Amino acid sequence: MADPQSDAIWILSSTFIVFTMQSGFGLLESGTVSVKNELNIMVKNAVDVVFGGLTYWIFGYGLSFGNASFSNAFIGWGDFFVTAEDEKLGIVYSKFFFQASFATTATTIVSGAMAERTKLVSYMIFSMINTVLFSIPAHWVWSSKGWLYMLGVVDIAGAGPVHIVGGVTGLVATLMLKPRHGRYDGERHKASTMSSPTNAVLGMFMLWWGWLGFNCGSTFGISGSKWKLAARSAATTLCSSVAGGVGGFVLSYIVKDRKFDVTYMINGLLGSLVSVTGVCAIVQPWEGLIIGFVGSLLSNAGVALLDKLKIDDPVGCVGTHAVSGTWGMLVAGLFIRKDQLLNALYLHKASTGLFYGGGLYQLGIQSLAVVTIIIWTVVVSFICLKLIDVTLGLRVSLEEEIIGADIIEHGIGNFVYDRKTKTLSYAPEFAEPIRNGQVSGETQDAIEQNTADNNHIEVNPDTRATG
Amino acid sequence: MADPQSDAIWILSSTFIVFTMQSGFGLLESGTVSVKNELNIMVKNAVDVVFGGLTYWIFGYGLSFGNASFSNAFIGWGDFFVTAEDEKLGIVYSKFFFQASFATTATTIVSGAMAERTKLVSYMIFSMINTVLFSIPAHWVWSSKGWLYMLGVVDIAGAGPVHIVGGVTGLVATLMLKPRHGRYDGERHKASTMSSPTNAVLGMFMLWWGWLGFNCGSTFGISGSKWKLAARSAATTLCSSVAGGVGGFVLSYIVKDRKFDVTYMINGLLGSLVSVTGVCAIVQPWEGLIIGFVGSLLSNAGVALLDKLKIDDPVGCVGTHAVSGTWGMLVAGLFIRKDQLLNALYLHKASTGLFYGGGLYQLGIQSLAVVTIIIWTVVVSFICLKLIDVTLGLRVSLEEEIIGADIIEHGIGNFVYDRKTKTLSYAPEFAEPIRNGQVSGETQDAIEQNTADNNHIEVNPDTRATG
Amino acid sequence: MADPQSDAIWILSSTFIVFTMQSGFGLLESGTVSVKNELNIMVKNAVDVVFGGLTYWIFGYGLSFGNASFSNAFIGWGDFFVTAEDEKLGIVYSKFFFQASFATTATTIVSGAMAERTKLVSYMIFSMINTVLFSIPAHWVWSSKGWLYMLGVVDIAGAGPVHIVGGVTGLVATLMLKPRHGRYDGERHKASTMSSPTNAVLGMFMLWWGWLGFNCGSTFGISGSKWKLAARSAATTLCSSVAGGVGGFVLSYIVKDRKFDVTYMINGLLGSLVSVTGVCAIVQPWEGLIIGFVGSLLSNAGVALLDKLKIDDPVGCVGTHAVSGTWGMLVAGLFIRKDQLLNALYLHKASTGLFYGGGLYQLGIQSLAVVTIIIWTVVVSFICLKLIDVTLGLRVSLEEEIIGADIIEHGIGNFVYDRKTKTLSYAPEFAEPIRNGQVSGETQDAIEQNTADNNHIEVNPDTRATG
Repeated sequence: MADPQSDAIWILSSTFIVFTMQSGFGLLESGTVSVKNELNIMVKNAVDVVFGGLTYWIFGYGLSFGNASFSNAFIGWGDFFVTAEDEKLGIVYSKFFFQASFATTATTIVSGAMAERTKLVSYMIFSMINTVLFSIPAHWVWSSKGWLYMLGVVDIAGAGPVHIVGGVTGLVATLMLKPRHGRYDGERHKASTMSSPTNAVLGMFMLWWGWLGFNCGSTFGISGSKWKLAARSAATTLCSSVAGGVGGFVLSYIVKDRKFDVTYMINGLLGSLVSVTGVCAIVQPWEGLIIGFVGSLLSNAGVALLDKLKIDDPVGCVGTHAVSGTWGMLVAGLFIRKDQLLNALYLHKASTGLFYGGGLYQLGIQSLAVVTIIIWTVVVSFICLKLIDVTLGLRVSLEEEIIGADIIEHGIGNFVYDRKTKTLSYAPEFAEPIRNGQVSGETQDAIEQNTADNNHIEVNPDTRATG
Repeated sequence: MADPQSDAIWILSSTFIVFTMQSGFGLLESGTVSVKNELNIMVKNAVDVVFGGLTYWIFGYGLSFGNASFSNAFIGWGDFFVTAEDEKLGIVYSKFFFQASFATTATTIVSGAMAERTKLVSYMIFSMINTVLFSIPAHWVWSSKGWLYMLGVVDIAGAGPVHIVGGVTGLVATLMLKPRHGRYDGERHKASTMSSPTNAVLGMFMLWWGWLGFNCGSTFGISGSKWKLAARSAATTLCSSVAGGVGGFVLSYIVKDRKFDVTYMINGLLGSLVSVTGVCAIVQPWEGLIIGFVGSLLSNAGVALLDKLKIDDPVGCVGTHAVSGTWGMLVAGLFIRKDQLLNALYLHKASTGLFYGGGLYQLGIQSLAVVTIIIWTVVVSFICLKLIDVTLGLRVSLEEEIIGADIIEHGIGNFVYDRKTKTLSYAPEFAEPIRNGQVSGETQDAIEQNTADNNHIEVNPDTRATG
Repeated sequence: MADPQSDAIWILSSTFIVFTMQSGFGLLESGTVSVKNELNIMVKNAVDVVFGGLTYWIFGYGLSFGNASFSNAFIGWGDFFVTAEDEKLGIVYSKFFFQASFATTATTIVSGAMAERTKLVSYMIFSMINTVLFSIPAHWVWSSKGWLYMLGVVDIAGAGPVHIVGGVTGLVATLMLKPRHGRYDGERHKASTMSSPTNAVLGMFMLWWGWLGFNCGSTFGISGSKWKLAARSAATTLCSSVAGGVGGFVLSYIVKDRKFDVTYMINGLLGSLVSVTGVCAIVQPWEGLIIGFVGSLLSNAGVALLDKLKIDDPVGCVGTHAVSGTWGMLVAGLFIRKDQLLNALYLHKASTGLFYGGGLYQLGIQSLAVVTIIIWTVVVSFICLKLIDVTLGLRVSLEEEIIGADIIEHGIGNFVYDRKTKTLSYAPEFAEPIRNGQVSGETQDAIEQNTADNNHIEVNPDTRATG
């Protein structure tokens, strides 16, 4: 029944779609941050694939799916520097390609939480190391040797290794980085301004359509009965997102005095997609609706809670990915029905869920997975980020943060910043002036006050009222 | 010969592509409306999938393809709250997924005609109800029990149920809503300003590539001879769009004094794609060229006519979808050749078209379909929209229209509008100021005149010259 | 073993993805040029598909793959006005569709080099003629009768016919057009301003994901062993782009004083994708890394060299496509291994490359292909462009260049330019004012100096300092 050709082609086609999600993340994040970091966050999304892809090829795939003798229930080993010959070529390369898109997604999630204050070089190092964070839990859950797999855990498309890992790493990173300058002075935290809400919604759209490929491709083939599961993934994922959108709209209407704040819609819709990721192929559309609606509320609650706690998560990554990802792992313990289709996905060891009379066993396994993946992520991401922090430093200087990474890191508008003298130089005779709205308010003020002497602009955060 | 696995996978893959068209519609519409409603129209495109998708799952699919005993030639019944088990699972879910993308497209078309003056809550209700408008004609044309299907009507990818329904609903809606404020004062209607022509063209691009999936996927499989028809769909659709683009460029060159107005290109190209939608798989590329070129001229003529009649259709939806959709239904009566490939699409009942010596029979059937679908759409959309209008109200207040939906409905830039006092408050100490060009001219003026007292801005349309 | 149904569907699916690259090119180019030409370059990308697609249907496919008796080693003949019946329908139309996406890509590459100073009508004529430039080398390389094919040349996805042809035509065009006004006055060439670096990076993203379809689809099927090659294409292309990104980042860090200039990233990443295009399916991922890293450096070196030589190539097309395309052709002569998989791609005549002990034969063939394709392109593109130049004229007037094509060609912002009196009229009472930053600095100044008499704005380049 198994047909490697059809399966591989399905995996490849799905991966083409999954990679378009990087455009979606880029737009969502660049539309949500302030205008002075719009470009920088797009570049970080490229860094995720470039540097994260490199280490995934070097050691990530091997840590997840390596088959050498050292590999055991906790770690894969072998297949480093992925290379395959002859018979294995088609299977290995399509699997590597598919999993690489998952690995880089897990890293991309973190970029949102670290936005607007992280050094780009440090972020590059982080994106290389972060591959470890994804690859080990991926081994636990998806490798035939993995200890969670052997216990019967169910996670079709990565609620654990992708979303919990990404969201929890984001939480650790934002706690270590501390909030953006001025974010929680007085009432100011009510009022961060998105550089382009239109781009943010467009990014949400791209993630939405890409997620269809993400979830449907995760049947990892179409031969045997798998094509039926791919079709169910599509219908269930769509229904879940529909409920998530409804949840976001309703919540904003109630909480925001009959306004439809787009962040509620975005966090709700993406939260619902995260929620259904783990079970997309094995639950029915109506179950998807319930899972997605709850996931939408949880995701928005998570975002609100973090804001209340003055934990600054610029794009809402913790609520959307960590909170909804946890919910997404647990629902498998509630909704699984033990039928023949489960076997098509090699999930023979999974048990019937609580709601179908299977008792607490599967819910226990799913909870165990959640807890161990969270512990793993907290410990390892803390160590990795701390190491980067004490060596290279994670956070930019206050002056650089105020000016914004688009000028500091990328030199847009032909500005040059001198780190020693802390002065921004700018040669207006060489170029069109920078567009209004592409620099921070503070920098804009400084530029306007210095038209007489265009060559040296001092941005001094201390002499400026925080209001 | 039939291979449900291959067919279902083709349907799923195509639908992934079709859903990307929502990004295209969003960009086209947000780039075309004025800058103060850019975000709002993107949100309405999300509403189409969220609320339209919900009702399509609840009753839309059942009204089109339900097989319960009550279903007859005019209406489907059964399969509500779409859920399938075992054997039927793969077929039902892939079909639901595919058709849901069509249903939400039909609603999205309408959002353009209602742009810049429709309450968001009312639009949400409308998008739920609009599912009925699509689902019944879809039953007539595509269900094996449908009366038009049994008469031999040909409509491969929805010229009728998607484009005529969408375009005519748009016409009814815009007539009921009346033109935007100041649109036809003096000569002003010559001069509406697009918020971002670049985004509008990008939106056109995304629709173009998505349409390839839309038309090719509509062979509804690849087994038997269907893959050949999918290949012909691709070639013919491409050729039609090429001719449509040429038509738009030439027309603008002539009419606009050697300028290339992008709306001519956009309406022409999309009009040609609409025109070939009904027959994409069964006509040859050269026929596609003719069909597309004529469709391009008709679409632009429709847009010009509406403007002349002072019917305000902000994104040109009526010309592009209703006019070209009608042409697209009629061409089947002209160009059909009765060959074996027709049978692969279960179109045994279709007759040879006029141009191939088949007489007027098929043209008559296609005309009958056009007339009945238009009558259906006018009557039912009028009733639905009127019901919403007398209960919730369709149109926003004049002050709200001037300020724009991005502030009123979504609170961007940290503005708060008080509906009772009709004042706009704004707390500049909480945020970066709103970017120049994100509010309407009137609001911008009011903000600038009120810098002394930043907390209350009065926008009074009466005291401002309409020029 | 061959299964035309599966192969055709793979080709169609891949082509859907390839066409999305047009959105990518459009965004990359419009984000890179100055703001006054943002729309115009998007329109030129539509022109490439519209007018280039038309002539590809009329004669391009026939010149490449026509099988009439006149066709020989140097030119195809027959199959003009592509139309197929019955048995051949599926194969011919899917091949036409796929190759049309390649042909229009070759033209799109050129649009970048001609940006900001080329008449739109002349560009339309050029895009029709340019089909010849692609179609003849495509015959040499890919037709079973082609002389390079018979010598054993290897070019899987068009390093020669697409990238060398596109890049070299761009070089000829920019030399004929001469640099943009003021580009190399004094030090100004250090300081051109991108209209939207964020859009440029988004464009790079879209090209990246589209390239996966481009290279994987170029196995031209999945039956037999071809699916394995498609999987290797995916892994190798991804690895090559990863190395290209690394190359761009490292280079910018060194050259630009620890700044990450996005053009280095973009040119590096796209250069690496071009480099691996010719051998994507037949080399291993680690070879892809080497090829891509070198390609990234070469592409950036090419861009820097042209700037040094004061050859104005606004989007860096020559470095990215001509230089890396040449490298991409040569690598086949270095890395080919003669195994059975080569035969699956009908590359029986290829020899083992230099690095695997095959000597210089294959490198010689690849070099011969490079040289002849370059000579062909230089000669024919020069003749075509010169003919257009002496009849219609290629370059706009200086006043028109300063005002920008968005106003001149497309009339955005309700401006009207009178070519005789060289005055720009503008009726502000008809519309919202144009957004700050949508016109050139010179025009902006002129508008502001003329608020008293809004109807006539004189843009006089002579009286303005070039600084």
